[in-house]
Amino acid sequence: MSELQELVEGIRRDLESHLGEGKVADYIPELAKVDPRQLGIAVATIDGGFHTAGDADTPFSIQSISKVFTLTLALGKAGDALWTRVGREPSGTAFNSIVQLEYEKGRPRNPFINAGAIAVADLILAGHQPREAIGEIVHFVRFLAGDDSIAIDHEVAKSETETGYRNLALANFMRSFGRLDHPAEHVLGVYFHHCALAMSCRQLARAGLYLAAGGSNPVLGSRVVSRERARRINALMLMCGHYDGSGDFAYRVGLPGKSGVGGGILAVAPGKASIAVWSPGLDQHGNSLVGTAALELLAQRTGWSVFGP
Amino acid sequence: MSELQELVEGIRRDLESHLGEGKVADYIPELAKVDPRQLGIAVATIDGGFHTAGDADTPFSIQSISKVFTLTLALGKAGDALWTRVGREPSGTAFNSIVQLEYEKGRPRNPFINAGAIAVADLILAGHQPREAIGEIVHFVRFLAGDDSIAIDHEVAKSETETGYRNLALANFMRSFGRLDHPAEHVLGVYFHHCALAMSCRQLARAGLYLAAGGSNPVLGSRVVSRERARRINALMLMCGHYDGSGDFAYRVGLPGKSGVGGGILAVAPGKASIAVWSPGLDQHGNSLVGTAALELLAQRTGWSVFGP
Amino acid sequence: MSELQELVEGIRRDLESHLGEGKVADYIPELAKVDPRQLGIAVATIDGGFHTAGDADTPFSIQSISKVFTLTLALGKAGDALWTRVGREPSGTAFNSIVQLEYEKGRPRNPFINAGAIAVADLILAGHQPREAIGEIVHFVRFLAGDDSIAIDHEVAKSETETGYRNLALANFMRSFGRLDHPAEHVLGVYFHHCALAMSCRQLARAGLYLAAGGSNPVLGSRVVSRERARRINALMLMCGHYDGSGDFAYRVGLPGKSGVGGGILAVAPGKASIAVWSPGLDQHGNSLVGTAALELLAQRTGWSVFGP
Amino acid sequence: MSELQELVEGIRRDLESHLGEGKVADYIPELAKVDPRQLGIAVATIDGGFHTAGDADTPFSIQSISKVFTLTLALGKAGDALWTRVGREPSGTAFNSIVQLEYEKGRPRNPFINAGAIAVADLILAGHQPREAIGEIVHFVRFLAGDDSIAIDHEVAKSETETGYRNLALANFMRSFGRLDHPAEHVLGVYFHHCALAMSCRQLARAGLYLAAGGSNPVLGSRVVSRERARRINALMLMCGHYDGSGDFAYRVGLPGKSGVGGGILAVAPGKASIAVWSPGLDQHGNSLVGTAALELLAQRTGWSVFGP
Repeated sequence: MSELQELVEGIRRDLESHLGEGKVADYIPELAKVDPRQLGIAVATIDGGFHTAGDADTPFSIQSISKVFTLTLALGKAGDALWTRVGREPSGTAFNSIVQLEYEKGRPRNPFINAGAIAVADLILAGHQPREAIGEIVHFVRFLAGDDSIAIDHEVAKSETETGYRNLALANFMRSFGRLDHPAEHVLGVYFHHCALAMSCRQLARAGLYLAAGGSNPVLGSRVVSRERARRINALMLMCGHYDGSGDFAYRVGLPGKSGVGGGILAVAPGKASIAVWSPGLDQHGNSLVGTAALELLAQRTGWSVFGP
Repeated sequence: MSELQELVEGIRRDLESHLGEGKVADYIPELAKVDPRQLGIAVATIDGGFHTAGDADTPFSIQSISKVFTLTLALGKAGDALWTRVGREPSGTAFNSIVQLEYEKGRPRNPFINAGAIAVADLILAGHQPREAIGEIVHFVRFLAGDDSIAIDHEVAKSETETGYRNLALANFMRSFGRLDHPAEHVLGVYFHHCALAMSCRQLARAGLYLAAGGSNPVLGSRVVSRERARRINALMLMCGHYDGSGDFAYRVGLPGKSGVGGGILAVAPGKASIAVWSPGLDQHGNSLVGTAALELLAQRTGWSVFGP
Repeated sequence: MSELQELVEGIRRDLESHLGEGKVADYIPELAKVDPRQLGIAVATIDGGFHTAGDADTPFSIQSISKVFTLTLALGKAGDALWTRVGREPSGTAFNSIVQLEYEKGRPRNPFINAGAIAVADLILAGHQPREAIGEIVHFVRFLAGDDSIAIDHEVAKSETETGYRNLALANFMRSFGRLDHPAEHVLGVYFHHCALAMSCRQLARAGLYLAAGGSNPVLGSRVVSRERARRINALMLMCGHYDGSGDFAYRVGLPGKSGVGGGILAVAPGKASIAVWSPGLDQHGNSLVGTAALELLAQRTGWSVFGP
Repeated sequence: MSELQELVEGIRRDLESHLGEGKVADYIPELAKVDPRQLGIAVATIDGGFHTAGDADTPFSIQSISKVFTLTLALGKAGDALWTRVGREPSGTAFNSIVQLEYEKGRPRNPFINAGAIAVADLILAGHQPREAIGEIVHFVRFLAGDDSIAIDHEVAKSETETGYRNLALANFMRSFGRLDHPAEHVLGVYFHHCALAMSCRQLARAGLYLAAGGSNPVLGSRVVSRERARRINALMLMCGHYDGSGDFAYRVGLPGKSGVGGGILAVAPGKASIAVWSPGLDQHGNSLVGTAALELLAQRTGWSVFGP
């Protein structure tokens, strides 16, 4: 067994006693049903290695992690013009806060808070019906992961659509400032569906490999974005990927990462590996409690950090 | 001439036509007198190389860059207990904003906004008279740079003391929540003096070398902090080092950095080099306009980035 | 000609040179079409007197003035239980601000800002279809004014419905906190329609007479609310009736009043008269500029003020 | 015994069982020592009547009630130019909030929140030493009440000076925007001393009589301000006199009033009477709990209300 495989399994073992800690997201009814005592870890190295531990093959709702993929897709379509719609700064507020939008006239602070991802979804809709835009996103994520079995969990999408008042408020608020080109219902149709993508840690780690490897997936041999764009997406993940807990994540883990309220986190060790963890219990900022702990151990034990030798 | 030396000089040349852009800080009367048409660059590599261009030997007021050094010093004294006083999150507001302090009961968001650095100064004061604490800081910065000529510009310190009403407001506000142990006047005495340290790019790049080299200065052979602490200080610099322009700096430059309203920026390429730039004109967030441009060019041309190969 | 009649005509004359000042509301397209050079004044005294000047018979969109009538109606249905849904404090923010809703968990500060009136509309909907609730409001306003010709301007209602993204945001935001019982579209259907009531100054002054006369309309001989409730509605009008310009209105005019972005203001001189003015140009807070000036002159010249002999 | 005397005694009796409710202010150490089970009521009618009940002759710290008197004094000195320094709008925030000051560049919303009263104290200082300005205020209040025994409680003033960090923050913050002409320490010297005036309900009701009687004290035969200015001060008291509980006070009591954290309230029934109540326990907004209840009963039983017959 390789050293990295042992290391990953060790982390899973060391966190056994913490399984179930945190609070499973309950504002999306479907998510509240998940068994909290699960932890999956998957590490895809850029030289083709692959290591998993725990529940790494169980699909979960990736939720906001999808925002990394839609940002990538939207940058491909709109290029830097995207930044006229969304900023690149941490928000200093909760993922679903509307306060900043009022003070800054409907322009979301970054593409990883809800408002920002809604603006990104609006860009992806350009020239499309919602159904087509959703199809394009699913297709893109399958391409990234090299796995055509990835699909949307329609129960989750339905659950979000029925209870997504806060996101409806965000979208309509932005529209009142002329910040959306499409009807709020269409934009949220796209938004709720891409958040409802179901993926396992295995699939997620593979899908993120392009960010670790300078923009192309070395296993699949496919280029996704330029080297520079990969860096920039990583920068955004580090700065804004964990909402108002981003600073703490950077301090403790030291790697770009993006969390979702389903309990997943995609982390990137540039030049080394793409890592996916999943454990449903969340901390106060909506980030996976045990998942973050797993990444912290992984960073410590591998020495992976963007912040120093 | 070495490749890096040529590169540094090329950057200085390429920015010639931009010298004088931006707005020199005027709220500290002494700073308003500086000639804006200056640009200094200094790069200290961890293998002992040293390269400069432009006004790299002109001392300037390092202002908030000093917060990196006082944080390092305070962590040495208080350890992780420091984090009960100050947070580790980007603020999403201006460097001198008081709004967040009211909402979060007097606990500053991070050690690099004014309020946070005031809390750090309060920790350094423990068991000291202000004069002693100031002496200790000067001594520490001389030790970091290996240069006993570094000193405080007392005209600047006096200028700040006489006009520092906003910082007096911040300190008294924190004190009203029981967040400071010492009188506001003492704490600000320390604060204003360490902000008034005068250093050249040459001195600054040397002083920051421990952050690039895993916590010890390879040229002087002195250990400053542990490898892990160096990483963490870098993480804080990246997340919070440019106030409400931190996200943009991470996106464009991709390196941890700390700016000061004197126009200086200290940037760190972990495992590679410590970089100091200086040009007095500031952008809307209070960060050096031409200095940032110089770092962006340097990152592009060297390929240095924490975010990817 | 009576003294009051002369006084009212004199005010109209004295403001001739100011007609057209201010800015006509343009966020509701239909309202932007109104000729700004109009001023109507109507005074209904509790002893049955009636005096008008200028464009007092031209119907205009009463907009937020309707919130006084829907509050009266909702208090009749829900009684003091209404105050579990809405507060009674000035907001310190703009009429359509959403910031306070986030800080205070979806409970609007008072029934006269948009969010508060949406909560009131939700209460009026209880047990009704939107169409019935709208019918009930129209019926009630006709009863107050003793005038069955009062009707909704459906062009305005349509215009608001099509562009009311900000109100959709407010309603959905409140719904996300469980603060609305009905779908946002239904509640806003009621809201947009009652705002689109078209009334002349003559009709409006009559409709407000119950507030000047201790809760009953002395001309029609109909009791509307108790003496105590009339006082309390007047208190709310004084405190919150002019959004973030309420303090200024109390200072200058000294009477309870409620403005609408159509340029109308209903003011109450308790024990004396109900006054309606209308002039389309608005000040920075969305209150009629010339209308407020007319009320200020009226208060000065009659000596009417709640604040002293 | 007169009807009003019986009424006042009845209120005192009816509130017996509530004495001690609320929370005595503890952020000023001297105030925390007061026995909470006290209630004083004094009513001075404009026809010279005078009625008291309970602890109406016990001096207490009038605290923010003094802001009514300093506003009156400052308006006499600066006239309407005062309003370039301070606004006239309710703040929608706590009495000691600093948030609004940042958003509105150091201009306080009204003269009755702490920041506003500090701006007023700065105006009174013009051409004076702090000691002289304090003397002038004491002299003025003695003149208003016709009672030369009124004095400052120097223990309270000292206690506030030693713990007034929040007010120091407010003053320095305003000074950073150029909103104060004098050093913060001087302005706060005046501010803390006028807040520390000790008065009984008897003295306070007399001092407020000019506000009930159109600007002059009918008992002493002295004119204080014009009829119009008396109205306007009453308007400000109603709109802003109870901080973020002003709307509730207007709704329940229906009279202009100003509260202090010492537990006192001065209320004005224009054309009828000046009323002072005192009971130390405070509600969540810092207003006397039992004192407000006493005023509510008084308003109900006398029918006094500015809002209707």
